[in-house]
This record gives sequence, C-alpha cells and structure tokens, in this order.
Amino acid sequence: MHTLAEVADYLGLSFSGDADRELAGLASLANAGPSHLSFLRDEQHLEQLSATRAGAVIVAPRWREHCPADCLLSNDPHLSFALASALFDDTPLAFPGIHSAASVDEAASVHEQAVVAAGAVIEAGATIAEGAQVGAGVYIGHNSTVGPFTRLYPQVVVYHGVSIGERCIVHAGAVLGADGFGYAQAEDGWQKIHQLGGLRIGDGVEIGAGTTVDRGALDDTVIEDGVVIDNQVQIGHNCRIGRNTAIAGCVGVAGSAVIGANCTLAGGVGVVGHVQICDGVHVTGMTMVTRSINEPGSYSSGTPMSATRDWKRNAVRFNQLDAMHRRVEKIAAREDAEPVAGSDKAARRGRKET
Amino acid sequence: MHTLAEVADYLGLSFSGDADRELAGLASLANAGPSHLSFLRDEQHLEQLSATRAGAVIVAPRWREHCPADCLLSNDPHLSFALASALFDDTPLAFPGIHSAASVDEAASVHEQAVVAAGAVIEAGATIAEGAQVGAGVYIGHNSTVGPFTRLYPQVVVYHGVSIGERCIVHAGAVLGADGFGYAQAEDGWQKIHQLGGLRIGDGVEIGAGTTVDRGALDDTVIEDGVVIDNQVQIGHNCRIGRNTAIAGCVGVAGSAVIGANCTLAGGVGVVGHVQICDGVHVTGMTMVTRSINEPGSYSSGTPMSATRDWKRNAVRFNQLDAMHRRVEKIAAREDAEPVAGSDKAARRGRKET
Amino acid sequence: MHTLAEVADYLGLSFSGDADRELAGLASLANAGPSHLSFLRDEQHLEQLSATRAGAVIVAPRWREHCPADCLLSNDPHLSFALASALFDDTPLAFPGIHSAASVDEAASVHEQAVVAAGAVIEAGATIAEGAQVGAGVYIGHNSTVGPFTRLYPQVVVYHGVSIGERCIVHAGAVLGADGFGYAQAEDGWQKIHQLGGLRIGDGVEIGAGTTVDRGALDDTVIEDGVVIDNQVQIGHNCRIGRNTAIAGCVGVAGSAVIGANCTLAGGVGVVGHVQICDGVHVTGMTMVTRSINEPGSYSSGTPMSATRDWKRNAVRFNQLDAMHRRVEKIAAREDAEPVAGSDKAARRGRKET
Repeated sequence: MHTLAEVADYLGLSFSGDADRELAGLASLANAGPSHLSFLRDEQHLEQLSATRAGAVIVAPRWREHCPADCLLSNDPHLSFALASALFDDTPLAFPGIHSAASVDEAASVHEQAVVAAGAVIEAGATIAEGAQVGAGVYIGHNSTVGPFTRLYPQVVVYHGVSIGERCIVHAGAVLGADGFGYAQAEDGWQKIHQLGGLRIGDGVEIGAGTTVDRGALDDTVIEDGVVIDNQVQIGHNCRIGRNTAIAGCVGVAGSAVIGANCTLAGGVGVVGHVQICDGVHVTGMTMVTRSINEPGSYSSGTPMSATRDWKRNAVRFNQLDAMHRRVEKIAAREDAEPVAGSDKAARRGRKET
Repeated sequence: MHTLAEVADYLGLSFSGDADRELAGLASLANAGPSHLSFLRDEQHLEQLSATRAGAVIVAPRWREHCPADCLLSNDPHLSFALASALFDDTPLAFPGIHSAASVDEAASVHEQAVVAAGAVIEAGATIAEGAQVGAGVYIGHNSTVGPFTRLYPQVVVYHGVSIGERCIVHAGAVLGADGFGYAQAEDGWQKIHQLGGLRIGDGVEIGAGTTVDRGALDDTVIEDGVVIDNQVQIGHNCRIGRNTAIAGCVGVAGSAVIGANCTLAGGVGVVGHVQICDGVHVTGMTMVTRSINEPGSYSSGTPMSATRDWKRNAVRFNQLDAMHRRVEKIAAREDAEPVAGSDKAARRGRKET
Repeated sequence: MHTLAEVADYLGLSFSGDADRELAGLASLANAGPSHLSFLRDEQHLEQLSATRAGAVIVAPRWREHCPADCLLSNDPHLSFALASALFDDTPLAFPGIHSAASVDEAASVHEQAVVAAGAVIEAGATIAEGAQVGAGVYIGHNSTVGPFTRLYPQVVVYHGVSIGERCIVHAGAVLGADGFGYAQAEDGWQKIHQLGGLRIGDGVEIGAGTTVDRGALDDTVIEDGVVIDNQVQIGHNCRIGRNTAIAGCVGVAGSAVIGANCTLAGGVGVVGHVQICDGVHVTGMTMVTRSINEPGSYSSGTPMSATRDWKRNAVRFNQLDAMHRRVEKIAAREDAEPVAGSDKAARRGRKET
C-alpha cells in the first residue's frame, strides 16, 4: 500500500489529486477500482479513460483533462507504469544465507548477503556475489560466477565456466552452458567435438523459463548487456546476441549466428547457423532467417493462414509455381510484351538467397 | 493381472468368453498374445482383428462375429480401451507422507494423505491437498495451491501465487507461473514490467514435460478445466485457454491470446498475441495464427514439402508472386476477359489480414 | 598441457616439427596462438592457414607445405580435431560414490564406480552401472537403468521403466519417458490413455538440454545407437529413431513416426505422426514433413525470407494461387497452347500429399 504522493515521488512525477490516497496495486483502465493505479497508453484507450473507476491514472499531460481520477503526469506513461510495477511487486523475498539443505563446496565463494536456497548445489571455484539469489535446486558448475543482485529461479542449471553479470534474472529450468551440437563424421557414426568454450552473459539480462544457451566450441558464446529472452528459446554455440536485443518465445538460433544490437525476433523465428544480422533488424513471427541481413528493417517469411480447404487448394499450386511462372512468361513473350518482372535472372539470384 | 470378468465389470461392458481368463496387459491387435486385451478401433483394422492372437478384444457389437477371441462389447471401443489403460497402469505409487529430504516451510499446509518426495521444496503459505503427489525436486512457491489428487512429476516448478485444481497431471520440468515477457522501452534499453498477476489452472488438466505457462501481467493467466497440453508448449501471460482444448507439442501461444473451448492446436502451431479464437477451431500443424478466428472449422498455413531441388525452384517464385499476378491480370485484361478472381481489391483486403 | 608428440601419439598421426612443443588447448586458425593446436578443415581456409599463429596445425598431407607451423598429418583433419577435443576437454570430473545429500532407495543398485551427485533421487529397482554419472538433482524412476559410462547432467528426469545404454550423454533438464500425448474423446472431455510402454535408448546416444522423449503407449519408444539429438527437441510416443540419425534443435517429431538411419533433421523441423522416413533423408530447417518419405535425398518446405513489405505483397497472392493458376490455364487454352505443366490431374495428386 502506497499513497499517491509516495508513488509520484518514487516515479519522479508531478500529480494532481489526493496526496494521501491509498493505492494497493496496479490494474488496467477497464478493471481498475478506487484503490488501483492505472495508465493511459495511447489515444486509442481514451474512451476507457473516461469510464475508468481507477483511483489514479498515469497520463500524458495533454490527456489530463480527460482523466476522471487523480493524475500522475508523465511524458511516457507506459514506461512510468513499468517502473511502478516494481514498487507494487509482492514477489516474496528470500533471506540472505545458505539453506541447510543446500550443498555448497568448501572451495566455492558465496557472499554473506547472497541467498542459496534448499537443494541448490554449488561446485568448487564458483562465485556467488552480493545480493545474488540462487533458487531451490539450482546447480552452479565449477568456476562459474553469478553477479551481484542476479536472481536464478528454481532448477536453473549453470554448467562450469559460465559467467553471469549483475542484475540478471534467469527463470526456472533454464540451462546455461550445455554443450553445443558439434560432431565430425567418422566411419561408424558421429564423433563428438568436445565443447571447450564458455558462456558469458552481460548485465541486466533476463532469460526465460526453459531457455537453453549453449557454451562455445572453442571461443565463448556471448549474450551482451540488456538482452531479454523469453521462454523456451534455444541459442546455439558460438552465437553472439547484441545489446538490448529482444527474443520472444520458442525462437531457435543455430550455432555461430551473430545478431546485432536492438533487434527483435518475434515468437517461433528460426535463424540458421553462421549468419550475421545487423543492428536494428526486426523479424516477424515464425520467419526462417536463411541468410545474413545487412539492412535494418523488418523481415518475414511464411504464408498467411486460411481455412484448410482453401489452403490446400492454394498450397498444391505452390509446387507448380515455377511451371506457372514459365508459362506466363511464354504467353507474355508471345504477346510481344516486356518480360515478367522477376525474370530468370532475378530467379537465379533469388535461388542463391534461399 | 485381471480376469476378463473383472475387466468387463470395471468397464461396465458385457462380454462373451472365458470369465476367468487372466489378462496381464494391453496390446495392439498385431502385437497381442493370449494374455493381452486389445481393441478394434475401426473398420480399417478388421483384417488385423481376424488374425489377432489377443486373449480378448474390445469390439463394437456389429463386429462381434469377426472376433476370433473373447469379446468385450462396447459402443466406443477406443474410449473403453482408454479406460482399461488405467486399470493396467503399473506406474509405481508413492506412499503418503513427507520425505525426510524434502524442505517444507512450517507455514505451509500439507495434507497427511499427500506425498512430498525427496528434494521437494514447499514455501510458506502453500497448500498441498489430499492425495496430491509432489514429486522429487519439485518447487512450490509461496501461497500456491495444489489440488486434491493432482500429481506433479519430478522437477516441476510452481512459482508463487499459482493455483492448480484437482486431478491434474503435470509432467517433469514444466514451469508454471514464471514471469510473462513484458517490457517498456526506456532510453537505455528495456524496463521490465513486473508481472503481478497469477496463474489459475482448472480441474483435470494435463500439462506436458518442459511446458511453460506464464503468470499474468496484472490479471491471471487461466487454463480452464479439462485442457490437455503436450510437451514443450509455451503459453504467454494473460492467455485464457478454454475448457477441453487440446494443444500438441511445441506450440507457442503469445501473450493475451484467448482460445475457446474444444479447440485443437496441432504440433508446432504459433498463435500471435491478443487474438481471439472461438470454440471448436482446429489448427493444422505448424500453422501461424496471425489473426482472430470467429468461425469454427479447420485452419492452415505453410507450404507443402517437396524435394529440396524442386522446392528451391518454386520458392524463388514466391518472391515474384505479386509481379506474376499483375502480369496475368494485364494479359487477361488485354484479352478482354473478366479480371482474375482475387483482384486488387481482394488483395488489399487480404493484406490487412496477413 | 600436452606435447606435440603426445598429441600425435593420441591421435595416431605422424607429425613434423618440435616434438616437445607444449600445446595448451585448441583454437581456430584465426584465433590460435603459439600454444594452440588448430586444423585446416578445407581449401577455403588456406589463406587463414598461411597467416595463422598456431603452434601446430592438423592438415591433410597435400596442404602440408602451406603450413607455417608444426604439422600433424591427417587424412581427415576435422575428425582428428574432434578426437583431439576430447584430449583437451577440461570439464571437471566427479569422484565415484554417492553424495550424502542424494536419496537412493535401498532397493536400487548403484555400482561402486558410479557417481551419484547431491540431490539426486534414485528409486527402487533402478540400476546405475559402472562409471555412470548421475548429476545433481537427477531423478531416476523405478526399474530404470543407466548404462556404463553414461553421463546424466543435472536435473535430468528419467521416468520408470526407461533403459539408457552405455556411453550416452544426456544434458541438463532433459525428460526421458514422460507420458505420450494420448486421449480418447469422451462425452465430457478427454479420457487419458495411460501410457504403458517404456523407452529404450541405445549406446553412444547424446541428448540435448531440455529435450523430451516420451514413453510408448503400449510398446516402447526407441532411440537407436549413435543417435545425436540437440536441445529442446520433442519426440513423441512410439517413435523409432534410426541409428546415427542427427536431430537439430527445436525439432518436433509427433507420435509413432519412424525415422530411418543416417538421417539429418535441421533445426525447427516438424514431423507429423505415423509417417515413415527411410534411411539417408535430410530435411532442411523448419520444414514440415507431412507424409512418408521413401527416397533418400533432401526435402524442404516453407517460403524464402524477404523484407516484410515485399513479403506481404506476395503472401497475399498465395491465397489467390489456385485462382491465378486456373486463369493462366484458361488463357493458355485459348491460345491453343499445351496445358500448363501441373495440370488439374497433378493438382489432385498433390492435394492428397499435402
């Protein structure tokens, strides 16, 4: 419970209304009641603003007069709301110290202000910094480091030789530093290439539940500062993910791919190995990135969804596309028309790109 | 080991044959021997029925005379077989009680007829109901509840403030209630939006191994009664999955999607955020659901598989489709034919839908 | 640290140069220094070879004279390098024995030369063979077996009745033998089909982090010898994966699919249930395998990536493909031309295959 004045102070915003109003939590404009703080994200929700029962609303100054409740004035209400969410977060805190049911090697170093929960296992040479939280059942391999104020939720597995920066969050079941998928072909099957590199994770990184990031084959896999990664993402060995890039759920990035800063990969995207993606690239959902991208912008692949009956009719024609194309070109030629855009030359070029 | 009469009694079916016949297990018609119970799913397997060595077979009354073995008569042999599978399930049982190597907070409530296995960690305020089984290494966060006769396999992680109904099954490594993927853009990167909602899971829900279901941002994520979810599925924050909907492996559902009752999503489907899918929708494998669906029925996207050489030739033409379409329309116009179905107007409409 | 002569001896190769040269590790040609061993994979890297600062390089005899450093001569430098990676692997070893914080049922059998780490739980009837390593927090269900020299990394879950062969590696968080996804439709929802089969994993198999392989419904799911599987792969119940087949990250294989030997499935591939894939099939990234494959070779589906603006224009035409095709055929007919390749007959055939 915080008063309006306290919230305004925490967010560094001016306000109008009852300074002593008690705010118990956050809610959307539509669901908020008198003890809730809400926010107006954009003009599209103005009608909801007029009708809201919220006790207080974060609004941009220009929408102030539409607000029926107490106001917090922000030039970026969405960002202010995000900051407010930290204030109202009631995720239970753990007390510093090593739980009696944890197994910490005597050659590991655990800061006295760190938390090591029940069932956690910390190997020799590992370092757990000040304010770090090692959740229940977490495994920290030999010589790995967990930076200050980083939180590892239960069952996270950190292999040996992995470094995690400060203020990171790693959600349950994530696996950091497992072997990359590397083999040489021998006569009688696959010969494993032992993965001798490590994994370096910068500061302020968040990694989702069940996500896996492999160690490098020779050099380290690198996740730069500020990267945010959703659940069930797979990052292969030797990848580098640039600063502040955001990767949504179920994305797979194959080995040795290098992704720039400030990129976004939407859900289910696949990136093939060894490609380079420059800064500022956005890839739409379930796209397969099959080549390097050198220009910022948005990229896509796939086909639109339709009723299965219609889809089948069209999908079967996909397998006749080249024949159809050549037929059209032939007709066009006969008509003495200029050739179809996307001529054979373009096709040859395109073919290389697929 | 059960006699034919016992099985018939358990399933509520009439039978013909040797009441004392001992049945040791279930098998397919092709693989069954004299101590096995099998079933005839449909007419297509009639030949297998004639040749089966099974001791007894569940059949529909109309196929009775084709059965060379003892018969159990059912109007729905597949369903009867499913029920029989429970009778023959020999998955080892655990004894009620709290294992000495479990860590249960003294402010947690564990029913005396519940099981808490070795290595499990249960936080303050959590409730484990009668007959519930908390497997080895499972983590139950603060104030979460596990309903009666619900079974959590090893290493499941339940965050704080999650409620799970009765008779649910959650397979190993599933993570329930991790933070949704929510950020506001700040000048120097992503500002986390703390996820303050919870997660509510109904009764009779089954959740597969390695599946992740996120907690809500403000309100709860909801999985309704009878939903079945396969392995490695990702359900984003604020989603609602309707009663008895079935979701196959590797599906990703982005945040705030609402899926109706009695839907089926086949393997690898992706659903973008904030869409609504009505009851009774079926989505075929690896389809990307890019918009709301208001009509029951089957939906698809993607292209058919072919030999890579052929595929490359056709795929490159995909990138020339619009040019080809315009060319065809031009030729058609010159021929004074009616314009091609799917004119520019339709295209503009379609474009909005992609 | 190994001398050049030691490395040559270990790899069974002849060498030229300083037999006593100390080699501390492996590195790529570009990154290597004087204490590193590197290798020349193919002709394309000859320039890097000339410029390398590596202390020693594994090269094919025909490139020997281009090598500015000491040489190890191999007819397959990539394979020799893979073998060398084992020699330089410094992954920390564990000491045989059962950790005091492990929970081993007295009716389980653990070889005295096996490792059972802290937090591991081993149920009655389970067998852990000589040299096997059961990592921290691993769960081994009733009557399951872990073969000689097999390593299970932390948090692996092995359900009951699973057998794992010798010299396997299973990475953290993998789940072996969870229930397959099987239900019969009842009036009021889904009736679970209890999964009574087991899971058999051969020798020399590697399974990635977070990968799930389900037990069979009636018979066993089978992974044959030498199969390598990357992270976050899902293999459904009753599947059989043939010898030495390689499956990259994020692949999903639906139930009862049978995949031959020496196949490769690239990242993100989906295989529908009940299909059969013969030996020697290669499937490119994110392809959906919708039917059985009877001819070795490479197979694909999907569309090429392009800028989203271009993609939208072409994607909308996908939904008009059949109309366009019929239009083109009509024009062609009018011109008295032979009908377009991929006539309606072909389309009907194709339709069945999608």
